[in-house]
Amino acid sequence: MTCCRKLFITVICCLLVVCIVAQDSLNVYPTHWWTGMRNTKLQLLVHAKNIKNGRRVLLQPYPGVTLTSVHTYTNPNYLTIYLEVSRIAQPGKLRFTFRSDNAPVAQLTYDLKKRSNQNGKTRIKGVTSEDLIYLIMPDRFSNGDASNDRIAGLRDQSLDRSDYFKRHGGDLKGIQNHLDYLQQLGVTALWLNPVLLNDMPDRTEHGYAFTDHYTIDPRLGGIKAYLELIDSLHKRGMKIIQDAVYNHIGIEHFLYRDMPDSSWFHWWPTYTNTTYKDQVLLDPYASIIDRKRMSDGWFVPSMPDINHGNPYFANFLIQHALWCTEEFGLDGWRIDTYAYNDLEFMNRCNKALLDEYPQLYLFGETWVHGIPNQSFFTRNKYNIPYKSNLPGVTDFQLNLYGILPALTQGFGWTEGVNRLYLTATNDFVYANAMKNVLFLDNHDLSRFFSMVGEDIAKQKMGIAWLLTFRGIPQLYYGTEILMKNFADPDGKVRLDFPGGWPGDAANKFEPGGRTPAENEVYNYVKTLANFRKTATALTTGKLMQYVPEDGVYVYFRYNAQQTILCVMNPADNEKEIDMHRFAERTMGFTKARNIIDGSLTDITNKLKVSGKTVWVGELR
Amino acid sequence: MTCCRKLFITVICCLLVVCIVAQDSLNVYPTHWWTGMRNTKLQLLVHAKNIKNGRRVLLQPYPGVTLTSVHTYTNPNYLTIYLEVSRIAQPGKLRFTFRSDNAPVAQLTYDLKKRSNQNGKTRIKGVTSEDLIYLIMPDRFSNGDASNDRIAGLRDQSLDRSDYFKRHGGDLKGIQNHLDYLQQLGVTALWLNPVLLNDMPDRTEHGYAFTDHYTIDPRLGGIKAYLELIDSLHKRGMKIIQDAVYNHIGIEHFLYRDMPDSSWFHWWPTYTNTTYKDQVLLDPYASIIDRKRMSDGWFVPSMPDINHGNPYFANFLIQHALWCTEEFGLDGWRIDTYAYNDLEFMNRCNKALLDEYPQLYLFGETWVHGIPNQSFFTRNKYNIPYKSNLPGVTDFQLNLYGILPALTQGFGWTEGVNRLYLTATNDFVYANAMKNVLFLDNHDLSRFFSMVGEDIAKQKMGIAWLLTFRGIPQLYYGTEILMKNFADPDGKVRLDFPGGWPGDAANKFEPGGRTPAENEVYNYVKTLANFRKTATALTTGKLMQYVPEDGVYVYFRYNAQQTILCVMNPADNEKEIDMHRFAERTMGFTKARNIIDGSLTDITNKLKVSGKTVWVGELR
Repeated sequence: MTCCRKLFITVICCLLVVCIVAQDSLNVYPTHWWTGMRNTKLQLLVHAKNIKNGRRVLLQPYPGVTLTSVHTYTNPNYLTIYLEVSRIAQPGKLRFTFRSDNAPVAQLTYDLKKRSNQNGKTRIKGVTSEDLIYLIMPDRFSNGDASNDRIAGLRDQSLDRSDYFKRHGGDLKGIQNHLDYLQQLGVTALWLNPVLLNDMPDRTEHGYAFTDHYTIDPRLGGIKAYLELIDSLHKRGMKIIQDAVYNHIGIEHFLYRDMPDSSWFHWWPTYTNTTYKDQVLLDPYASIIDRKRMSDGWFVPSMPDINHGNPYFANFLIQHALWCTEEFGLDGWRIDTYAYNDLEFMNRCNKALLDEYPQLYLFGETWVHGIPNQSFFTRNKYNIPYKSNLPGVTDFQLNLYGILPALTQGFGWTEGVNRLYLTATNDFVYANAMKNVLFLDNHDLSRFFSMVGEDIAKQKMGIAWLLTFRGIPQLYYGTEILMKNFADPDGKVRLDFPGGWPGDAANKFEPGGRTPAENEVYNYVKTLANFRKTATALTTGKLMQYVPEDGVYVYFRYNAQQTILCVMNPADNEKEIDMHRFAERTMGFTKARNIIDGSLTDITNKLKVSGKTVWVGELR
Repeated sequence: MTCCRKLFITVICCLLVVCIVAQDSLNVYPTHWWTGMRNTKLQLLVHAKNIKNGRRVLLQPYPGVTLTSVHTYTNPNYLTIYLEVSRIAQPGKLRFTFRSDNAPVAQLTYDLKKRSNQNGKTRIKGVTSEDLIYLIMPDRFSNGDASNDRIAGLRDQSLDRSDYFKRHGGDLKGIQNHLDYLQQLGVTALWLNPVLLNDMPDRTEHGYAFTDHYTIDPRLGGIKAYLELIDSLHKRGMKIIQDAVYNHIGIEHFLYRDMPDSSWFHWWPTYTNTTYKDQVLLDPYASIIDRKRMSDGWFVPSMPDINHGNPYFANFLIQHALWCTEEFGLDGWRIDTYAYNDLEFMNRCNKALLDEYPQLYLFGETWVHGIPNQSFFTRNKYNIPYKSNLPGVTDFQLNLYGILPALTQGFGWTEGVNRLYLTATNDFVYANAMKNVLFLDNHDLSRFFSMVGEDIAKQKMGIAWLLTFRGIPQLYYGTEILMKNFADPDGKVRLDFPGGWPGDAANKFEPGGRTPAENEVYNYVKTLANFRKTATALTTGKLMQYVPEDGVYVYFRYNAQQTILCVMNPADNEKEIDMHRFAERTMGFTKARNIIDGSLTDITNKLKVSGKTVWVGELR
C-alpha cells in the first residue's frame, strides 16, 4: 500500500466518522418496545438525514433478538429495520450500527423494556357497560398549567378564549384537578379528544391532525401530564380512552413533509375530498370510483389520507396503537372516522390490539345513517365477505333515530318514542349491542340541551335514558351543567367549561357557581350515575321493551337480582299506565322505589307518570 | 236367535242405513288429490253431520295407498283421515267407509288424479325479474259477466258502483276480456286480489275474508272462469299469481262457524286486535305478551285469527296451497299479512310448496318499516335463530323509503334521491334482492299519481324507475291511465277501471277513451315495458349505482350483452351530468339510444337531462 493510498483512506474514514448521526438527531418509531409481547415481530422506522446510506444495519448480538431485514425508501432519510423479538428476550438495550458499504454512519441504542405485566391486566381494565364515559376536549375543560398555554416553536401561537377556533389553554392537569368533580358525578372513564401533537398552523384545538404520533402535545402538558392523569385515574379505579386517528394525519406531520415515498398516501390528479358516503362500502352495487373516493379521498385538505395498503405505514400505525396501550395503560380506544379507513387494515389493527390486550375496549366512530350501515362496521350477524372484528361503535342510530326523535317528534307509527323503540328492536343485527356507546351529543353534534329546545325536563329525560338503556353511556362534558349551542359551526359546541380557568365569571364545578337549574340537572346526573354504579340490572342486565302505547315507552332492565322499570313519557301531560301488561317483568313485585326521590309507589294496578319524565324505579 | 232379536237387528240396520251420509252432504278437504306428489302424506278433513260416529274408517284396498290413522275432534261433525299415498299409487278412486262400532254411517269416494306433469313444469313457469306483474282487484277491473254480479244465497247482496265498499260486479271474465290490453301494455303476469269465496255480509270486494278455501267466488265467475282465465294467460305465455291468506279467515267460514274445536283459533278473554307491530318478532328485547298480541291478536274483528300451532289446520292450509298450485297451475303466490302468521308455520308451508314446485315464486306482504325488519321475513344474510325461507317480499322499503321520497322530497344528505339510493345500498342483507317485488302503489296504498301531486312527469319517472330498477316490477291496475286518490279510506284507491263496465262514460282500455295525458303515460309504460321484455340488462342484469350528486341519481343495469344508463333528475331544471365519473360502465361506448324516443346522444363527455325525468338509454 502506498503512502498516497493510506492518506486517501484516512481522509475518507474521517469524513465517514463525521457523518455518523448523533443519537439525538436520529428518530426511531416506536421509540422503545417491550419484551413479552405475543407478536414477536417488530418494525423500527428510523428517520435521520441520509440514513439510507447506512442501510447495512448490524445488531450487536442480543439473546432472543434477531434482525431479519432492512427496508429502504426513495427518501434517503428513512430506513426500516425488522426484528424478531422472541419470547426469551429479556429487557435491555439493543445496539445497532448503520453502515455504508465501507463504514459506520450512525448508531442507535434502543430500549427493550419489560412489559408491565402479562396482558397488562393489572393496569388495563377495559371499558364495559358498567362504565360511564365522559368525553372531554382537553383544550376546553380546564387550564391547570398556564405555563404551557403557548409553546414556543409550535406553529399555532394563538391563545384567544374569545374565539372558539383558537387555543384556549385547557390541559391534562386541568382535567386531573377535577377528577373529584367527575368521580362524584358518577363518571368512571374519560375519553379525551386526541392528545397527540398537532403542530398545525391553526384549528389545533380539536387534536385530530397528528404531526407526531410519539409526542403528547406539550400544550396539554406532554407525556408527563398524561401519565400523571392516567395514574390518578387508575388509582381511583377510573379508566382512560384514547382517541385514535388512522385515516389521516396533519399535513405538517414529518411523515408527510418528509415522506418516505409517495406510496404512503393517497393521491389524486387534483385535490379530491372523500364523499363521506360510508354506504359505498356495503353497497353491493357500488362503483369502484365511488368506493375509492370514499376511502381514498382526503377528509379535509389539511389532512393527507393515509394509504393503509402501504405495509410500512400500516405497521407504523398498528405498533403505535400497541405502544400507547402499553406505555400509557389505556383501557380503550375510540377510533375516529372509522368508515374512512381501509377496513381490512382496521381488522388487522383491532386484532393486533386485542391479541395483546383481550380486555381492551375498542369502538369506532360511525356517524352513518341506518342500522345496516352502522352494524356493518362492528361485529355483527351478517354472513357477508367482510366481517368486522370491531367490538363496539358510537351508536349514532340510537341518537339520530333514537333519543332525539323520541323527545322532539310527536308520537306516530314510526315517530317519537316509536322511532327510538323501533331502532332498538333492530339490535338483533349486532353481535353484542351492549358494546355500543350511547350518547346524547359529542364534540361534533349540536348540544343535546339545544336539540331539546333548552327544556330542562327533556334534558333530564335524555340523561335518564342514557343511564338506564342498554350499552355504554357516554356523557359530553358540560351536559350536566346545561351547556348548549348548535354545531354551526362546531366550535360552538366546544366552549370552555365555566370555572375551568382562573378568574372565570362562574365556577360551575362548584354548587355555588351553578344556577338552580344547573344544580338540578347536575344532581340528577349524579344521583342516577351513582345509583347505576351498583345497579347491576342497569349495567349488565337484560333489556325488555314494550310496544309504546299512548305515546309512552316502557322498558325494563333486569337480572336475577334486580328489576328496574323505566317509563318514558315525553308528552306534556301526565299519563296513567295500566301495569297489567307488564306482568312478565313485574310478577313478584308490588312496589317501585323511585331512584331520584326515593319514594315508594304501588305498581300492581296503575302508575301515574308526569309529563316530560322518564320515571325510573327499582321494583320491590 | 229369537225372532224378537232378529227384528231388533233389522230395525237397527235400517236406522243405520238411513244415517249413512249421502256423498253430496259430506265435504272433504282437499276435494281431491294427485298421485306423483313428492310428499306422500295426505290429510283429509271430512266435514259432515255427526261424522264422528263413523270414526272407524275403512279404505277399500288400493295399491300404494294406506290409511294410517284417523283423528276426531270435540265437534262430531269432523273427522280427519291420514293417508300414505306412495309413489307407486296410480290415479283412481279411493273408497272409504265410515263405520260406527256396528255399522257403516257414511261412504266417500275420493279422486286421486294424475299430477299434471313432473313438478308441473310445463304449466308452471314461476315469476321472476323478467316479468312485469299487474295487480288487479277483480271486483273493480271489468265486468265480463253481468249474470254473476249478485248471487242468490250469498250474504252480501250489495251491488252499488257508487259506493266503493259495495260490490261492483267486476269478474274474472272481465279480466280475460282485456288480456290483449294487458299484454300489449307489456304485462306478463297477473296478481289478483283473492278469488276464493268471501261469503261475508259486507266489505266482500277485497276478498281477504275466505269462507271456503275450495270455492272460487261465484261473483267472480267461479272455478270455470278462473281456469279459463289461467288457461288464456298460459297460452299467451303470461302467468298467474294467487293471493294467499294464512293468517285469518272470514268469520263466516264454516271452519269457524262449525269449528272442529276451539284450538283451531286464537282466543282472548276479550276481543284483542293485533298491534300490527312486526318488530316484536325480531326484537331481541320483546316481551311474550307483545309477541302474542302481534301474532295471535285478530287482524280485524271479522277475521278470526288462525292458530297455526294446530297441526290439523296447518296441514289444511298447506295442502290447500298445494292443491291450488296443482289444480290451477299457479306461477306464484303473494302471501298476505306475512308477518302476522306463525313464522315457523310459514317456513313449513313455503317448503312444502317449493319441494313440489321449485320454480314457483312466493313473496310475502311486508308492510313494515326498516330494512332489518323487511329482510327478516325473507331469505337473508343474518346468522340468527329464525331463518326465513321465503324467496321474496313486497319491497315496501324501496317504496316508502325509496321512490316516494326520491320524487317528493328535496335533495338532502339522507333525503330525496339520496334516500332511494341509501335504501338500495342496504340490499346486502338480502340473500337475493332481485326476488323482491318493486311497486309504486297497491290496493292498500295511496295511488302513486296522488302521492306525486298528480304530476305526469313524476308519474313517468316512477314508472321508469319501476321498470329499470332491480327486482320484479309490479304495476297496480290503472296506474298507466293516471288513476288517483289517497287511501283514505282504502276504497278510494280501488275504483273501477273506466271502461270496464258496459255503458261507462269513457273506455280507457282504448286510446280514444283516454285523455292525451293518459295516452302519454299509457304509451310510456307500453314502450318501456315492451322494451324491457327483451332487455336482459334490465331483467336479469346487474345494478351499479353511483352516489347521487347535485340531486341527480345515476344507475346502470348491465350484463355482458347490454348496458342501460338511467339518470333520475327530480329537480325542476335541466341538469348537465359529467359522464367521466361513470367510465367503469361507459367504457367502450360513445352513444346512448334513448329508449322512449329512440334518439342517439353522445355520452363521452356531458349528458343533459331535463328536469323531472328519468333518462333511460341503451349504450352503444
